[in-house]
Amino acid sequence: MSHSNSYLMTLDCPDGVGLLARITNFVASLQGNFTEVNQFTDKINDWFLARFAFEIERESTLEEIRHAFAPIAAELNASWSIRDGGKPLRTVLLVSKEDHCLADLLWRWRSGELNIEIPLVVSNHPDLRPVIEKEGIPFLHIPIPQEPAAKDIAFRQMSDAICEVSGELTVLCRYMQILPEWYCEEHHNRVINIHHSLLPAFAGADPYKRAYDRGVKLIGATCHYATGELDAGPIIHQEVLSVEHFHTPNDLRRLGRDCERLALARGVRLHVEDRVVVHNSRAIVFGD
Amino acid sequence: MSHSNSYLMTLDCPDGVGLLARITNFVASLQGNFTEVNQFTDKINDWFLARFAFEIERESTLEEIRHAFAPIAAELNASWSIRDGGKPLRTVLLVSKEDHCLADLLWRWRSGELNIEIPLVVSNHPDLRPVIEKEGIPFLHIPIPQEPAAKDIAFRQMSDAICEVSGELTVLCRYMQILPEWYCEEHHNRVINIHHSLLPAFAGADPYKRAYDRGVKLIGATCHYATGELDAGPIIHQEVLSVEHFHTPNDLRRLGRDCERLALARGVRLHVEDRVVVHNSRAIVFGD
Amino acid sequence: MSHSNSYLMTLDCPDGVGLLARITNFVASLQGNFTEVNQFTDKINDWFLARFAFEIERESTLEEIRHAFAPIAAELNASWSIRDGGKPLRTVLLVSKEDHCLADLLWRWRSGELNIEIPLVVSNHPDLRPVIEKEGIPFLHIPIPQEPAAKDIAFRQMSDAICEVSGELTVLCRYMQILPEWYCEEHHNRVINIHHSLLPAFAGADPYKRAYDRGVKLIGATCHYATGELDAGPIIHQEVLSVEHFHTPNDLRRLGRDCERLALARGVRLHVEDRVVVHNSRAIVFGD
Amino acid sequence: MSHSNSYLMTLDCPDGVGLLARITNFVASLQGNFTEVNQFTDKINDWFLARFAFEIERESTLEEIRHAFAPIAAELNASWSIRDGGKPLRTVLLVSKEDHCLADLLWRWRSGELNIEIPLVVSNHPDLRPVIEKEGIPFLHIPIPQEPAAKDIAFRQMSDAICEVSGELTVLCRYMQILPEWYCEEHHNRVINIHHSLLPAFAGADPYKRAYDRGVKLIGATCHYATGELDAGPIIHQEVLSVEHFHTPNDLRRLGRDCERLALARGVRLHVEDRVVVHNSRAIVFGD
Repeated sequence: MSHSNSYLMTLDCPDGVGLLARITNFVASLQGNFTEVNQFTDKINDWFLARFAFEIERESTLEEIRHAFAPIAAELNASWSIRDGGKPLRTVLLVSKEDHCLADLLWRWRSGELNIEIPLVVSNHPDLRPVIEKEGIPFLHIPIPQEPAAKDIAFRQMSDAICEVSGELTVLCRYMQILPEWYCEEHHNRVINIHHSLLPAFAGADPYKRAYDRGVKLIGATCHYATGELDAGPIIHQEVLSVEHFHTPNDLRRLGRDCERLALARGVRLHVEDRVVVHNSRAIVFGD
Repeated sequence: MSHSNSYLMTLDCPDGVGLLARITNFVASLQGNFTEVNQFTDKINDWFLARFAFEIERESTLEEIRHAFAPIAAELNASWSIRDGGKPLRTVLLVSKEDHCLADLLWRWRSGELNIEIPLVVSNHPDLRPVIEKEGIPFLHIPIPQEPAAKDIAFRQMSDAICEVSGELTVLCRYMQILPEWYCEEHHNRVINIHHSLLPAFAGADPYKRAYDRGVKLIGATCHYATGELDAGPIIHQEVLSVEHFHTPNDLRRLGRDCERLALARGVRLHVEDRVVVHNSRAIVFGD
Repeated sequence: MSHSNSYLMTLDCPDGVGLLARITNFVASLQGNFTEVNQFTDKINDWFLARFAFEIERESTLEEIRHAFAPIAAELNASWSIRDGGKPLRTVLLVSKEDHCLADLLWRWRSGELNIEIPLVVSNHPDLRPVIEKEGIPFLHIPIPQEPAAKDIAFRQMSDAICEVSGELTVLCRYMQILPEWYCEEHHNRVINIHHSLLPAFAGADPYKRAYDRGVKLIGATCHYATGELDAGPIIHQEVLSVEHFHTPNDLRRLGRDCERLALARGVRLHVEDRVVVHNSRAIVFGD
Repeated sequence: MSHSNSYLMTLDCPDGVGLLARITNFVASLQGNFTEVNQFTDKINDWFLARFAFEIERESTLEEIRHAFAPIAAELNASWSIRDGGKPLRTVLLVSKEDHCLADLLWRWRSGELNIEIPLVVSNHPDLRPVIEKEGIPFLHIPIPQEPAAKDIAFRQMSDAICEVSGELTVLCRYMQILPEWYCEEHHNRVINIHHSLLPAFAGADPYKRAYDRGVKLIGATCHYATGELDAGPIIHQEVLSVEHFHTPNDLRRLGRDCERLALARGVRLHVEDRVVVHNSRAIVFGD
């Protein structure tokens, strides 16, 4: 068989005695060998969260492993996932007109730094079509009307297009539209956004202008899961940069792009490697 | 005469042609030699801001220099200040129960790192009296009642005590009371506070608990001038620190203390060296 | 009994299948509950390294637990340690004349931030005696002669004094003498030093002057275990700071003190919490 | 006339009384208005260094301004430069096989973030030809032989090609050859390199592997002028990043690329805006 024999498991459940022994015994029973173990017990909420990377030498299918683990997970009341560690994640990018985050992700994809496939790029503007098609990636222009009903139809069209290409992750690369609540809920913790401020500061529009007006000495960018509430989803990663009084709002935009690129790329990588487990709206990030 | 012959001048005024030549010629006319020049033109507001450090070899008193400069300043419609660069700034510290910022400032004062005198420490609690008196600094315990009229009387008492020792700067070292608006106005840009978040995020009470709940990946501290509006005054300096999911609110408090200490010490130093000029609620900081 | 029932175990051994299951089963057999698990497999050297924090409800002595684990450890060819998680580490400080690191550690000790006891401070100069004795800590002045044989006698005297107070950790707080090789070897990975540069840059004397001459834009400090080879021991933690062209060597010294304080305090805390495991001269740090 | 009326002047000379007044009077005499003034007096070497950005309303040519300033500069024994602030700098890029720094600079050039023209890219390998030619930039493949005489001929060829396109700046974008001493001298302070470590640590080959072996907790990249001595030229900018024990040498290479990209882009921008003045092998950087 040609499948990879490395696996990524994430799991969270109520805390209890012997949880880790339980799971390590399970992996041992498959003749599996751990390559990385990350575990965190949230004492405040009595919650157990973990990520296990392991390799199995003998022949097993992903389905067999999942099937074998299901009864244990049920017993532990666990949310869990096991997937093939080598398989690229199918990732759809949303863009508007600015291409700095897009160009950065494309470079990391081409170079193999990010283990993703990009089956589709969707935009509310036609401008970046040539950039995308030059890479051999299908580009879909879906304008977003102002009128609520028409807007909802446009987003349904986008959602359908993403389903059709079996998108597993949606990444907003400075996409300048607010996704509808239903979309964020249907793709819960599978929509990543980059916001150009150190959230929760300057949530919403034009953060660099507001940062300038407030006279902050640090600016940054926040990579987070998009949820129904604007800019309030679980934070995956933040980047920060010192600024000085002589930086105009345009300077902040320019410098901020470096934070945005980096924060988005790191956040996407963490997600793609199954290093993020969300509990109670906080993202547990098993670092890399 | 025994006075120092180094001077610090700060100045801000509407922008215009030849301003810098005007001032440099003035200093040249005194046979002065610049040791440091910092200038910033705020193009957005057409405003000129500058700091000049200079030395004068021949005998001049501070009063003579100020007198000579006054007509130029009047002509330029400038706010300005000239003071003796070697003279320590009389700085009153306000504390409550936590002593980490206090201990840090005291070390920097004792070691000569901060060019200040501390004629008085005021607290709303008696706890830190021994720490302060061991240093040979007068300690004044002024409890702050809840009841508005009584509270105002207490703050008047504090204000009088600070005037009596000729306090030029008031520093809130994690002082857990909100100063009355009239105090901040009377001591405009001469009251420095440390807030334990990256303002404007988590202004107000219990920022570390709120940072934990929001799941931010960066925490920090903000040193700013206190104004009538809580935590909204001009920002002098900010420090930041990465945190992870396993940090509890108490861990954030512990780690945050390192940011608070540092941000307050840097902010106070910048003020003491006359490196901060406030314009339109933004602090122009001529760095060091 | 009054002893704490929380334990810290560190362990490293050749990698193999089922190691984690083995240890988690051991802790489960004691009815222990993990409060924190950190594990790292060094794939380059096929080495397994881990730290386990666990609590045991029923009565067990440290000796019983160690006795029960010894045969497992022997089988795994493991280096290991199990100790009482609540017991403060007996820490001896070495100082010369500069007191910024010392003052910082003393504050963290007094405030309970660092879980240590300080049974003794040793110095090659008498200057800091009053500071130390005011804290109620014994101070021992051991001058270090230039002449090799006399110098060795002085260090033997220091070593004996540290043994006498059952010192478990020695911390050089800007102690300006090079410890003899035999001392570092006898106290292998139990002597922590702070070097005032980003090692391996500027190892040896006067790093700030050399950093200035080289015109670096970043300075820092390195907390590391002292070994027989000067400034070459395993690095526990590093702090860094931006500097500019206008900073003189003295400015670098001043700014660097903030890095030194912080790097040393973090490094000592990591050691005190048994978060550092050294393998092949690299420090594996299970972060906090 | 169509030329821009903004100018950049840099100047350094022995310190003296009235220097700043002298220059500001000169600019005032042209009816010039300063948009930015940066001045630094190096007290250790008694040296005056400055950058002036100014605008002139009335008609003047660059030659007229230079001609008018020359006698003043001669009197001050100054090294100086005045150039048109709006004119893009002709920048030649050198690459080998890795394209992360190249791709980043190309993006900043295309987006207008960097005020440069790229008349030529030279490589010792043919691999990146398609990437470059797709951008409409001439690509020149000059293999570098091992044999010293042949190697020198190859570099002469490169030097001629750069002269032919009137290259004003040469940027090594991870170019994996050491430039000959004569090239660095002929293009003194006009050749920018990116080294993938925090120089002076790990100068020379394979810094990430050596950083891993040494177990450092911080890695970074250094943008500097290339001189005859390898990795010893004046440092313009450095970027730094925390790393942990679980990062392999390949992880350091991956993470390091983010530092390299950023450090090189910032360094090039600082040079392009005439913000760097070198004195005594230290780079004075008038920040932005």
